[in-house]
Amino acid sequence: MRASEIRALFAVASRPEVVSLAGGMPYVQALPVEMLTDTVERLLRERGPVALQYGSGQGDVTLREQILDVIGEVGISAHPDDIVVTTGSQMALDLVTRVFCNPGDVVLVESPSYVGALGVFRAYECDVVHVAMDDQGLEPTALREAIAAVRASGRSIKLIYTIPSFHNPAGVTQGPERRREILAIAREAGIALLEDDPYGLLGFEGEPPRAIRADDADGVIYLGSFSKTIASGLRVGWAVAPHGVRDKLVLAAEAAVLCPSNYAQLTVSEYLATQPWREQIKSFREVYRERRDAMLDALDTLMPAGTTWTVPAGGFYSWLTLPEGLDATAMAPRAIANLVAYVPGTGFYVDGQGRRNMRLSYCYPEPDRIREGVRRLAGVIESEIELVHTFGSAGPASPPSGSAVPAPDLA
Amino acid sequence: MRASEIRALFAVASRPEVVSLAGGMPYVQALPVEMLTDTVERLLRERGPVALQYGSGQGDVTLREQILDVIGEVGISAHPDDIVVTTGSQMALDLVTRVFCNPGDVVLVESPSYVGALGVFRAYECDVVHVAMDDQGLEPTALREAIAAVRASGRSIKLIYTIPSFHNPAGVTQGPERRREILAIAREAGIALLEDDPYGLLGFEGEPPRAIRADDADGVIYLGSFSKTIASGLRVGWAVAPHGVRDKLVLAAEAAVLCPSNYAQLTVSEYLATQPWREQIKSFREVYRERRDAMLDALDTLMPAGTTWTVPAGGFYSWLTLPEGLDATAMAPRAIANLVAYVPGTGFYVDGQGRRNMRLSYCYPEPDRIREGVRRLAGVIESEIELVHTFGSAGPASPPSGSAVPAPDLA
Repeated sequence: MRASEIRALFAVASRPEVVSLAGGMPYVQALPVEMLTDTVERLLRERGPVALQYGSGQGDVTLREQILDVIGEVGISAHPDDIVVTTGSQMALDLVTRVFCNPGDVVLVESPSYVGALGVFRAYECDVVHVAMDDQGLEPTALREAIAAVRASGRSIKLIYTIPSFHNPAGVTQGPERRREILAIAREAGIALLEDDPYGLLGFEGEPPRAIRADDADGVIYLGSFSKTIASGLRVGWAVAPHGVRDKLVLAAEAAVLCPSNYAQLTVSEYLATQPWREQIKSFREVYRERRDAMLDALDTLMPAGTTWTVPAGGFYSWLTLPEGLDATAMAPRAIANLVAYVPGTGFYVDGQGRRNMRLSYCYPEPDRIREGVRRLAGVIESEIELVHTFGSAGPASPPSGSAVPAPDLA
Repeated sequence: MRASEIRALFAVASRPEVVSLAGGMPYVQALPVEMLTDTVERLLRERGPVALQYGSGQGDVTLREQILDVIGEVGISAHPDDIVVTTGSQMALDLVTRVFCNPGDVVLVESPSYVGALGVFRAYECDVVHVAMDDQGLEPTALREAIAAVRASGRSIKLIYTIPSFHNPAGVTQGPERRREILAIAREAGIALLEDDPYGLLGFEGEPPRAIRADDADGVIYLGSFSKTIASGLRVGWAVAPHGVRDKLVLAAEAAVLCPSNYAQLTVSEYLATQPWREQIKSFREVYRERRDAMLDALDTLMPAGTTWTVPAGGFYSWLTLPEGLDATAMAPRAIANLVAYVPGTGFYVDGQGRRNMRLSYCYPEPDRIREGVRRLAGVIESEIELVHTFGSAGPASPPSGSAVPAPDLA
């Protein structure tokens, strides 16, 4: 699928009669709008001239102090000076890549990986190498082998990019022991670990997983975001980085945007200072847990044999694998015709893998719509299975181009 | 002066007892805060879920339509699809450079040029070549010669970067005939013209100058901003670009930040739809005109002979040239000690020029403070002249490093 085809697909998928299990849009409707209206009104009344002015390239210092409380929830202790506020954590990804990578440098990523990160690595002409995952995420033996193989080929590895908690798109989470192993491998190899954690506070069971950065302040760059815990439309994210990296990120940020929006930053800051944000995150968790349950129930009940999926313990996504012989990319237009949309798995790889996979999002539609969407999808898959039995493999419609772009609703 | 020294200087310069003629911060206090409070309250009440959600990578379509009205003021007619909304026009600068330039490509810039643009061109390892200006800005003969010389050296010129109206830092404006000549030269040479116009609506006399883009939709990329006409803290700017460039800018923008902030964009959109924005810009103009007059009066009255400056017809800046033998960079700490700050001219060049120059901003301080600042500055310059007469040239304090960074208050 080419970028233009994906765009066309999304244009159709956004029609109201289509159940979209494609987009990664948080359900911002779950945020009581008065919480923000009160916040911004007070902000403009009390600190209007600051909120409307240029600010520091590194980000507002009070907000950076408040971010310490947020990342404290995943076990990180840091200093406000370690933090760089960015226009969404996507921009932090962009800046880190800009600082670390030259064209041809290797970035190791999970298999599959976040489409927006792949877009950044490609934009900087990095050589992206996928590393296998299992049901606990990034697989240590595969990671060791990938490092050895890349180095044997004479190439330089600049970053290991990982989403340890509630992975996008894989829906899996690294356990504590797994995190320790991955960190040990990265340290031993002397490669910076780029830990992307937009969903860390959106777990459905127990405490939020402890971040890898909580156990290594020097070798790990941690990316966080308010997109899923407050609102994505604010575009406020951050990086926590070791001193030398932090300095370079700030210089790069100043060249890129001068400074992040004070208006958005101080809205977040005022919200954190005056609203019960921990309770609000709890209520987001409840919303997403209910939707996850609706999706898993429907998958269990309706999916034909041979279809498998991951069981997410948090976040927004499940990763589905079709029976042998089926092709999620080729099937996408038929799914749309049956009024259900998903993201074909190939978008999450740079190398054409993922044809039997799709990402299913349960974050945005209401539970009943999720059930209806899964019902339609199961119907499409059943028809495909019949076709394959009758005529042989549906086969690839077109060679994978790997040119999927990170359309915002893939976020 | 090194980046760290400039930062230290600004840290001191921000102390309340110092009159800062250094920063380029708009006087956002001139915007009645209720205009925005009402706006954002209505926005969140009526369209909260959209304002708080991810949006399109190209920017909100309604806002793009409204931007057509704004750029209509400088004679541009375009289509909403020609516009890409960015996180401040700084980000548009970054994206255009990313799309056009490879390391070693030449960008022609004015002499002096905007420090934030130089920072971007440097970040992408462009080879920046300064072209002389006169009191009507970029000088056509010098431009022709620069193109010929660069091409004779076998290098490739990717962009001509110009600020035609109320130049930062030079304080000069290209007349209509000058603009025609520059456009003709760029077209003949087949080089894209990057027209940066943050101050175009802030002229003090007559109609806003007609943009170069108004006379060429194919060869000119136009950058605009709400930073100076509404509020810089929103970080909403835009590029108007020909079709093929526009597509690449959107892809680059999606990789960099996924999408600009809907919250900030829709705040601007709602403001434009419901508030008397043209009248508000008029009142900004009055504020800045009064301050410009205060500065020019004070300069006329107080500056020692041999000191010259440009007379801006709009915008935020005058460019001052010291008498022979004086050095604005070396003098900066002495000025700070005398409680007045400016930006030394060297920051606006990549090649060490500008040692006799400084940028004076009249945008932020009240008129009385401007007069007091100029009085202090005149005293410092007089002492320097005496020193030079007594002991010979003050001489360069340290070799120019060209490493000035675009600190936000240099914007």
